[in-house]
Amino acid sequence: MKGQFIVIEGLEGAGKSTAVNTVKTWVEAHGKIAQLVREPGGTPFAEALRELVKRDWDESITAEAELMLMYAARVQLVENVIKPALARGEWVIGDRHDLSSRAYQGGGRELGDAVLLQLRQLTMKDFQPDLTLYLDIDPALGLQRAHSRGELDRIEKQTLDFFQRTRQRYLEIAASEPNIVVIDASCELEQVQVQLQAALAARWPDNVCE
Amino acid sequence: MKGQFIVIEGLEGAGKSTAVNTVKTWVEAHGKIAQLVREPGGTPFAEALRELVKRDWDESITAEAELMLMYAARVQLVENVIKPALARGEWVIGDRHDLSSRAYQGGGRELGDAVLLQLRQLTMKDFQPDLTLYLDIDPALGLQRAHSRGELDRIEKQTLDFFQRTRQRYLEIAASEPNIVVIDASCELEQVQVQLQAALAARWPDNVCE
Repeated sequence: MKGQFIVIEGLEGAGKSTAVNTVKTWVEAHGKIAQLVREPGGTPFAEALRELVKRDWDESITAEAELMLMYAARVQLVENVIKPALARGEWVIGDRHDLSSRAYQGGGRELGDAVLLQLRQLTMKDFQPDLTLYLDIDPALGLQRAHSRGELDRIEKQTLDFFQRTRQRYLEIAASEPNIVVIDASCELEQVQVQLQAALAARWPDNVCE
Repeated sequence: MKGQFIVIEGLEGAGKSTAVNTVKTWVEAHGKIAQLVREPGGTPFAEALRELVKRDWDESITAEAELMLMYAARVQLVENVIKPALARGEWVIGDRHDLSSRAYQGGGRELGDAVLLQLRQLTMKDFQPDLTLYLDIDPALGLQRAHSRGELDRIEKQTLDFFQRTRQRYLEIAASEPNIVVIDASCELEQVQVQLQAALAARWPDNVCE
């Protein structure tokens, strides 16, 4: 069986890292190799782009240039890492993917969804995750959790309004696309894990996985 | 008067560098400051992208990623160099701009024009050159000239078919857009210069320039 591509999405503080590990454990318990990837990055070229985006520059980096680099890094990761892994039968677990751009840039920065869908089509054609688990959380709670972890990065320093728009876009897209499951990430950790496992079991009943 | 943006376009060996100098001389003879820019590059960030694209990598760089980087570099050049120069009243002379992507990637690599127009709109909105001078030449002649100059780079090593498709797209776009003037670059140098000067004089009659 060809591998499957599972993506974890959500705002800062929603618990993505923990969810990645929960999914990894579930995949391995079903006898599959799990490969973890994180955007942007994951190939030498994509990591170089990541470094460029995060470096301090004497010029302002436009939102448009940043968006182009995100898609450049993404298409490299898809073509050179994710697709080959799936072809070998491995399962790939992604910490963020295209839906992040649609929610953050499309919703948060109000670029709209049409432009983002054009970029996806242009760079990746019909390639999409087999399942996306969106960890939904009120931004105020998520940021409180993120704060308690330490320093916030540039994106995490946006206003609460920005994150409300981002969450809104996440929910709108999830409501219209069947391969995105909304997980209530405001629950206690154990209840979040139960929801994740239930979503995985519903998507891949045991007889398919074995 | 706000500055004007003039772009020189054409295949390898068409004589772009000489044309840039001819245009620069004309602009300065009309009492304007001429700033030369060359794509991709022209800002620290865009130069870093140029270096990434030209470096040798252990992974294959997808055509899509390369295209994204070209537009990322272009929007940085437009926002941080070209627009500020035009606002200061300087004239900017570009060695290649968006039309190169439309001809080489859209025509040569057969990505189509619609996708390229979407990328232009997404990154640069309605910003466009005030005049584009397209140096038209038969690719066989152009490549012969380029060969005689020395080593060819990666793009210059494409097949003749690729350059025929690129030229075809240049001509199609030039036929439908009034701000693009076709210059017969197969002529002797002096005749090319006469054509360039005539195109500039037609676009900016002296009383506007002074």
